[in-house]
Amino acid sequence: MCIRIAQSSTRDSVRRVPLPSSSRISAKLGVKMYRTTRSPMMQPLVNSGMGVAPFFKVTVFEQEHFQGKCQEFTSECCNIHECGLDIIRSIRVESGAWVGFEHHDFQGQQFILERGEYPHWDAYSGSLSYHVERLMSLRPIYCASHMSSRMMIFERENFMGRSVELCDDYPSLQAMGWSMPEVGSMHVQCGAFVCYQYPGYRGQQYIMECERHSGDYQHWKNWGSHCQTPQIQSIRPLTHSRSEVTWAERGAKPHTLLQPAEVNASADTSFKMAATVVQL
Amino acid sequence: MCIRIAQSSTRDSVRRVPLPSSSRISAKLGVKMYRTTRSPMMQPLVNSGMGVAPFFKVTVFEQEHFQGKCQEFTSECCNIHECGLDIIRSIRVESGAWVGFEHHDFQGQQFILERGEYPHWDAYSGSLSYHVERLMSLRPIYCASHMSSRMMIFERENFMGRSVELCDDYPSLQAMGWSMPEVGSMHVQCGAFVCYQYPGYRGQQYIMECERHSGDYQHWKNWGSHCQTPQIQSIRPLTHSRSEVTWAERGAKPHTLLQPAEVNASADTSFKMAATVVQL
Repeated sequence: MCIRIAQSSTRDSVRRVPLPSSSRISAKLGVKMYRTTRSPMMQPLVNSGMGVAPFFKVTVFEQEHFQGKCQEFTSECCNIHECGLDIIRSIRVESGAWVGFEHHDFQGQQFILERGEYPHWDAYSGSLSYHVERLMSLRPIYCASHMSSRMMIFERENFMGRSVELCDDYPSLQAMGWSMPEVGSMHVQCGAFVCYQYPGYRGQQYIMECERHSGDYQHWKNWGSHCQTPQIQSIRPLTHSRSEVTWAERGAKPHTLLQPAEVNASADTSFKMAATVVQL
Repeated sequence: MCIRIAQSSTRDSVRRVPLPSSSRISAKLGVKMYRTTRSPMMQPLVNSGMGVAPFFKVTVFEQEHFQGKCQEFTSECCNIHECGLDIIRSIRVESGAWVGFEHHDFQGQQFILERGEYPHWDAYSGSLSYHVERLMSLRPIYCASHMSSRMMIFERENFMGRSVELCDDYPSLQAMGWSMPEVGSMHVQCGAFVCYQYPGYRGQQYIMECERHSGDYQHWKNWGSHCQTPQIQSIRPLTHSRSEVTWAERGAKPHTLLQPAEVNASADTSFKMAATVVQL
């Protein structure tokens, strides 16, 4: 059902895709961005509600490196055994953002899965200290656009103490001004975020969504059934519609090294430069 | 030496710190941002060259959880044994971004280290399949501002084939339009980037810097002495001066849940809301 909604609303609103604030090239080259947005390579699809609701598709395999029995999913699976699979050892996410869980019914350690290839458990697991090669359930994650993703973090549980509103990628909360390695409680105002135990998006992963628990996570015990600590040191929004890459045209000749002066060129100048490079 | 330069140039140019394009709140609340920038919690320091050169400081410990013999570094260490340490089992990065290496003389597996606490090897390692609990050398990383960080990736080695310029965070290159899970070659135009083997900033980590190899990485064998594959599926810039969090004032009363109308409020409105929340 959710997929049909996403598809229909998207087809009607492809031209309404907002320019991500962080996409400097796209913002300066709107036409080029729309061209690439319409190309078959580009996946972000937009509706007028949460901002982004892509067509979700993931293929899971019983063996590593995409071998053995496989199964395709376009919506949630609460127990892979009920879908005819014994185990999941590799994953190819073809569209949308997903979250995998250690146990059935979306319990246990969480694994964020974004578009790309995960040839074995190591590729998506966040924790080495708690090493369990098991993914028993998975579901799509509904995100907002990069423009509107927003959450608040609080010093203490139950939304007490000083608070900070986040709307960007924070590979180190402490580097950005958060004075401690823990977070007391969180409220997701719009979209979905991934919180990580350690800086640089490492360690245990916790998916925080405004569509779950009303976006309220009063205590670290609410962050996930596997959560053992309030330690959170990096946070990033999950979004399908942030800056898209803009392809330069094909070229047979090698890239000409940039001159020092060009390094300081503005974003749109540098794009022209990039396009020129492969037309030499 | 680099530290003295950073300190002096910074003190002279605190007011010249650029507003990150991705910092919507800061951009709309410049005064508040400068106030927090000057607070002791905030670390980003700016010079007029590369954009950002912070005061680098890291403390390493011989035992996990910041126990045992420790050593503080403010510049590179090519061999911890020569610094009187037998092994590094936990790390506290107090300022700047660092990269740790599996072997002395900056060889082997790379570990990106940003401000925060790493109580054991699991916290900063990127690869489970290649599990080696050793960090023998480390050095600071000089970054550009988030505004000016820029690199190009190419389909094939030696800067051949189609290219794309990157200037943002890309948790999934494929979701952003890159059609394959590999990258042929790279050129860092400004700043430093971390490239990851898998989506979502997972797997092997490779630090790419415009100040090393002239920013040129012609072949995956140049990405690092430990690199075994051209597989790159997520990339993000390393920067000290992107959006800073803006503290709301202290409050003793609990957070009042936001109303649906407020969820769609603009960024500066939402900040006022956040400030109000803790003043109830």
